Amino acid sequence: MNMNILYLIPALGVVGLLVMAVKSAWVNKQETGDENMNRLAGYIANGAMAFLKAEWKVLGYFAVIAAILLAWSGTLVKDSSPLIAIAFLIGAVLSALAGYIGMKVATKANVRTTQAARTSLSKALKVSFTGGTVMGLGVAGLAVVGLGSLFIVFYNFFVDPITKDGMAKAIEVLAGFSLGAESIALFARVGGGIYTKAADVGADLVGKVEAGIPEDDVRNPATIADNVGDNVGDVAGMGADLFGSYVATILATMVLGQEIIVADQFNGLSPIILPMLIAGLGLIFSIVGTLFVRIGKDTDSVQKALNMGNWSSIILTAIASYFLVNFLIPANTTLNLRGFEFTREGIFMAIIIGLIVGALMSIVTEYYTAMGKRPVNSIIEKSGTGHATNIIGGLSVGMESTVIPILVLAAGIVTSYSAAGLYGVAIAAAGMMATTAMQLAIDAFGPIADNAGGIAEMSQLPPEVRERTDNLDAVGNTTAATGKGFAIASAALTSLALFAAFVGVAGINSIDIYKAPVLAALFVGGMIPFIFSSLAIAAVGRAAMDMVNEVRRQFREIPGIMEYKAQPEYEKCVAISTKASIREMLAPGAIALLVPVLVGFGFKGMFADTTSAEILGGLLAGVTVSGVLMGIFQNNAGGAWDNAKKSFEKGAVINGETFYKKSEPHKASVTGDTVGDPFKDTSGPSMNILIKLMSIVSLVIAPHIAVGGHGTAEGDCCKKDKVEMHGECAGHDMGGSKCDMSVCATMTKAQCDSMCTAMGCDSSERAHCMSMYNDKGEFVGQCMESCGKKCVTKEDCMKNCGESCASHHSDAKACCKDKGNASACKDEHAGKACASDPSKCEMKGKGCCKDAK
Amino acid sequence: MNMNILYLIPALGVVGLLVMAVKSAWVNKQETGDENMNRLAGYIANGAMAFLKAEWKVLGYFAVIAAILLAWSGTLVKDSSPLIAIAFLIGAVLSALAGYIGMKVATKANVRTTQAARTSLSKALKVSFTGGTVMGLGVAGLAVVGLGSLFIVFYNFFVDPITKDGMAKAIEVLAGFSLGAESIALFARVGGGIYTKAADVGADLVGKVEAGIPEDDVRNPATIADNVGDNVGDVAGMGADLFGSYVATILATMVLGQEIIVADQFNGLSPIILPMLIAGLGLIFSIVGTLFVRIGKDTDSVQKALNMGNWSSIILTAIASYFLVNFLIPANTTLNLRGFEFTREGIFMAIIIGLIVGALMSIVTEYYTAMGKRPVNSIIEKSGTGHATNIIGGLSVGMESTVIPILVLAAGIVTSYSAAGLYGVAIAAAGMMATTAMQLAIDAFGPIADNAGGIAEMSQLPPEVRERTDNLDAVGNTTAATGKGFAIASAALTSLALFAAFVGVAGINSIDIYKAPVLAALFVGGMIPFIFSSLAIAAVGRAAMDMVNEVRRQFREIPGIMEYKAQPEYEKCVAISTKASIREMLAPGAIALLVPVLVGFGFKGMFADTTSAEILGGLLAGVTVSGVLMGIFQNNAGGAWDNAKKSFEKGAVINGETFYKKSEPHKASVTGDTVGDPFKDTSGPSMNILIKLMSIVSLVIAPHIAVGGHGTAEGDCCKKDKVEMHGECAGHDMGGSKCDMSVCATMTKAQCDSMCTAMGCDSSERAHCMSMYNDKGEFVGQCMESCGKKCVTKEDCMKNCGESCASHHSDAKACCKDKGNASACKDEHAGKACASDPSKCEMKGKGCCKDAK
Repeated sequence: MNMNILYLIPALGVVGLLVMAVKSAWVNKQETGDENMNRLAGYIANGAMAFLKAEWKVLGYFAVIAAILLAWSGTLVKDSSPLIAIAFLIGAVLSALAGYIGMKVATKANVRTTQAARTSLSKALKVSFTGGTVMGLGVAGLAVVGLGSLFIVFYNFFVDPITKDGMAKAIEVLAGFSLGAESIALFARVGGGIYTKAADVGADLVGKVEAGIPEDDVRNPATIADNVGDNVGDVAGMGADLFGSYVATILATMVLGQEIIVADQFNGLSPIILPMLIAGLGLIFSIVGTLFVRIGKDTDSVQKALNMGNWSSIILTAIASYFLVNFLIPANTTLNLRGFEFTREGIFMAIIIGLIVGALMSIVTEYYTAMGKRPVNSIIEKSGTGHATNIIGGLSVGMESTVIPILVLAAGIVTSYSAAGLYGVAIAAAGMMATTAMQLAIDAFGPIADNAGGIAEMSQLPPEVRERTDNLDAVGNTTAATGKGFAIASAALTSLALFAAFVGVAGINSIDIYKAPVLAALFVGGMIPFIFSSLAIAAVGRAAMDMVNEVRRQFREIPGIMEYKAQPEYEKCVAISTKASIREMLAPGAIALLVPVLVGFGFKGMFADTTSAEILGGLLAGVTVSGVLMGIFQNNAGGAWDNAKKSFEKGAVINGETFYKKSEPHKASVTGDTVGDPFKDTSGPSMNILIKLMSIVSLVIAPHIAVGGHGTAEGDCCKKDKVEMHGECAGHDMGGSKCDMSVCATMTKAQCDSMCTAMGCDSSERAHCMSMYNDKGEFVGQCMESCGKKCVTKEDCMKNCGESCASHHSDAKACCKDKGNASACKDEHAGKACASDPSKCEMKGKGCCKDAK
Repeated sequence: MNMNILYLIPALGVVGLLVMAVKSAWVNKQETGDENMNRLAGYIANGAMAFLKAEWKVLGYFAVIAAILLAWSGTLVKDSSPLIAIAFLIGAVLSALAGYIGMKVATKANVRTTQAARTSLSKALKVSFTGGTVMGLGVAGLAVVGLGSLFIVFYNFFVDPITKDGMAKAIEVLAGFSLGAESIALFARVGGGIYTKAADVGADLVGKVEAGIPEDDVRNPATIADNVGDNVGDVAGMGADLFGSYVATILATMVLGQEIIVADQFNGLSPIILPMLIAGLGLIFSIVGTLFVRIGKDTDSVQKALNMGNWSSIILTAIASYFLVNFLIPANTTLNLRGFEFTREGIFMAIIIGLIVGALMSIVTEYYTAMGKRPVNSIIEKSGTGHATNIIGGLSVGMESTVIPILVLAAGIVTSYSAAGLYGVAIAAAGMMATTAMQLAIDAFGPIADNAGGIAEMSQLPPEVRERTDNLDAVGNTTAATGKGFAIASAALTSLALFAAFVGVAGINSIDIYKAPVLAALFVGGMIPFIFSSLAIAAVGRAAMDMVNEVRRQFREIPGIMEYKAQPEYEKCVAISTKASIREMLAPGAIALLVPVLVGFGFKGMFADTTSAEILGGLLAGVTVSGVLMGIFQNNAGGAWDNAKKSFEKGAVINGETFYKKSEPHKASVTGDTVGDPFKDTSGPSMNILIKLMSIVSLVIAPHIAVGGHGTAEGDCCKKDKVEMHGECAGHDMGGSKCDMSVCATMTKAQCDSMCTAMGCDSSERAHCMSMYNDKGEFVGQCMESCGKKCVTKEDCMKNCGESCASHHSDAKACCKDKGNASACKDEHAGKACASDPSKCEMKGKGCCKDAK
């Protein structure tokens, strides 16, 4: 087997993008309805585009400045490179592109769904779901293509294929890609979230409550902004969000994977490429899954069709993962990550745990937010005694809803760790995220249907059209909620994996909250999701007030609006939302990006026995715990309030009496829904990006704040490698390494591990040291596998094991084993000169041939 | 100087109680007004008493069962004793008594304040504040007397005065007192909080909103329950709460203090008695401070008078602490707690840091909740666009308000740790809590004034009476908010101190969140304040609905209520609140008590490299961080909503227009206030008890789950002490100790410390080991102070240092130094036989005389 498997990864992504193109063309071909519908759809599409342009302008400045800083920082330490800036920019651009693709198709699919809904529910579902699929495939396809290709590029650029030196650097640079993606994701999610909710809340407060006109009424000046919001928040924002999450999850697994030594058929790369391949397969099976999403007649269950598609793609991916893991990782091999030993069975088990955790999170989220279940019913009941009790009920439900997810998550952490150590935690998240394309298709069809309903209402189409789109929209609400459950669970696991990756790169080996500065950082970290949420919901409140005042002004100053005689100035409302969201997204974004940098550098060297890396670790733990809790709380409270309100449309029973729309209890429920809007669509879903982004920022700065001079010039604080092995017994050139192998020979594995930490060894150096020990933790040197004896020097090696000493090197590495034998030199890494003149076949430095030129 | 200083502690407490009795008698002597007022006050007093009786009944069962379990558990490990059950019961009874005293005086002072308000504001302030003072002195007096006396009892019972063996046991048993106090505090706070807010919310929803009658109108069936609620929640609940907090804070400092070795004039007890003495002095200076609380005429500022009293007591206590620390702790002595070295100057610095943190917390809290400041104004502004934006505004303000307090707290942790290590963190909290009597007087006068206003309204007294009580009530709202800021800050520091104490007793030396089970526990811990809050506010919602339905029923079924012709059935509403609060307080209480036990025992031995103690440590950290955040968030959001509503009474300006009561924005603000009620008076203030109680429970079970067999039979897993020192050179009988002194002789201080941890040494054993090293961390054995040489065995000692070797023992410990010299044997601990027959003067076991009988 050779390294061609690397090229399979972007190839799978390209397949996804091709299918996307086909589906996108299909959507474009659908009928767009009458002129009025097209005019309204045009307003929405233009408004959405205007927002994206305004957002991109601001983010462009940010990206350029950040890239310059990253390029500069890349020159400072050996385990980074100025290329990180390129990776960052590509990540940022692809993230924006993912959002753009989704929004573009959504603003086309919306009016086409409306038109399709004039015919049948099944047709409407097909159009809206295909729109969602385009978005899903776009996001996942770009992620797989982007990560896969960049990995190939950086692998070839930085990594010595024989010694694997430079792998840490390649992955660190690749982290720049994730940083770019996740930064844009945060701004897109927060900006889009503020936009959509400012418009939504503003439109509702004046339109529904004050003027008494229905939702999406064409007379409401904010209605176009409201519909634009669905596209920029729920579609473009979510697309960028999931692109970032997807990339972060895969990357975190790769970072940990590169620490694992395994004698596989892929030059030891299997733990690194496994998450990318799972993602690629998940993409393909998502495409398969979409084939199951279809209904026959209007009375069929849309939810059931979506579930069919979702579960079939998950189950197929799980089965495929089994074969994939067995294909990549050798049997009966013990893998080791930072002292935790596991097998390929453990890895597969961890993937399954990830899928189970994700499924349980979705089920619990659905329970807490679905109509007809106890939580939503309790809010309905409390609406009977007024606005305040409705709010109390929703807050209480939201807080309660953290319990089971947290217990599930805690169990998931412990079991996936037991299965495959930290790699297990990461791969569990990667497994969970594998079918992101499908998840996103299901998620994105909701706002498309919502928009379609809006266009139907504004174009005053017959009521059965709105009924059909409402049916789709209601299912969309549930899928949105369960999607959020999934997102927060995967974010939590991903953050832990990133956290672990950070610990490794930063060279610390514990984060002890019993130390005062670490504990203080835990408090500060826990506070960040609170201030972040505060800023986000306050921004919605402020922007909504601006919107209310503008709508009131138009009603007052433009005569004839209410009589359909004059057209409201939609564009003014669009401008308000655009401006407010761009302005207000900056502060929360700055917190997420700057706090880790300030803590990491600000406390460097401040405390005698506590490093700034450990303090930053405490901060990240605080952010993660508090962020997950606040995310679940806000998402579920918002979802439950929303469905409590919706329950009144068909009549809600309180103390035996049935209440409908416009009743007092319904008004109370509208208050709850309005409070829940920024919770569930602005601050709540931002939490998962927040926690991941802060972890990624920390990971990127880790080499700069690493312990033991890891980030400074090579070897200046450490002993030189004293091992005298060379020739065929020297798998590594350890010159300049910080691990003193001659000392290790006198140590237990654990002691050597500690020494590596103390010396500031990087992960590959550590891995090299660890490979010198047998399963029992005894030092055996590099000849262990060939003769089972202890050999420190070459002399030892020859004396104890003779020529067989060399045989444990895999073929690719052992081209010099048989000096003078041309065929032994014919491996892919050997130069041509080597093959033609076997006498030059000699180990020198990292090359294989004495003089290849 | 001798040990009589121990008796000074309860003596100071007795002074406080005597002053309390005098003030209580003064309140009793005041006029009670007319018959109608007395009748209404009688209803309130009887309702409050009925609640307390019902509560005590339930808590009685709990206390007895818990005491039996504790007594049994006390027999299982060497560092506990069945006596812990007695300590627990005394703590529980005193906590209940503290609440009872407060409630009793409050239900007398309320009507007397109403009567006084008919004369002047100054008189009304005097009566209500004296009522509050009785409560404050009662709580602080009982705490100081209780802790002080029990310490004397357990000291004499368990502790060998020469070797100080048994100190760990004495303190562990004393922790039972704190456990009893804090458990009752939790139930009282939660039960009382549910009671008062169920009645308040219920009365408002039907009375003010539906029936359109004013607050505290005599026609409202729930009005008596509402006024009872002020007494059982804001007075009795708060009294029990602060009693528990006060005790927990002092105890935490004592637990850490007993690990410190110091050659003072109080047999090494100074770090242990310092917190109790500070509390005693704080009590005295609180009495002094009350003298400053007085105003001349009605236009004088009540707030200013209270501030005068508060600050004078704080400043006097700070000054006194300086002299106290210098009196107790020797100059130029380096103290050492778990490797951190500090001096008496550091301790005083930590006390000052505690006072500064407390003051800053109060100032920030006041800013976020006071009328006229930006946060409250922003809520007022948002009320202009409806209920929902008011709620969003309040939630946003509450979340934002966590930022500065958390930064202050984090800085406080780090600086107080830098000043005096973990002891510094604990003593900072103790300093902050020293003037609890004064704090409580200021806090408790609020509900008394509130009640007085209620009685004035119900008795239809002239409006100027109500105006005067409203003036006091408004000030009371601010003091209540700042008091909560103080409480949460001290709780956070106390929890950290308890956390550190737990770590010591459990024998672990780090809590590494990088370990999967610990991180999982951090998540679970973070979730607990959410479910606790959810249960508490949902309980208020449910109970309020019962109340609403009952009031509606009475209005419907009892004709003539609205025309003052028929009297409502007040007692039915009282019964509803009582029943609901007792029922609903159980689940939150059970969570706080059981979770640490389940985690501590449930995960014992489950993970190879992670002890259940470390997992429990992670859980506690999660609870503390999340609890502090949720506490600040809820208290401040509630306070801000309340004052936003109150702002409409005098007219609130929104966009240039002034709105008053009954306007639409005012209605929106009432919704916010109602949502805030359970936040600020039920779940928010419970957070500080929750985090402390869970820490105390963990501390109490720590010996049972301790690492290294600490909790099992002596010595079964550890090496015996091999030091051969005895006679005059042996300060300790180390038979059965787990520290191998002969090995220590070859180690550095830090290594020996690690060994102590690995061996599961208890703190006194560890302290003994640590005392063998000089300031530079070199092993010098027990003769260090006398000759500066290294002596391991007696032979060494005699050879290196000769007779002078013995001279470093303090007189009390050196009675056997001069065998045959009667005068040398005449120390307070020597038996009579020893003094009369000097030949028997010989070290044997722990005694001083060979055969004392």
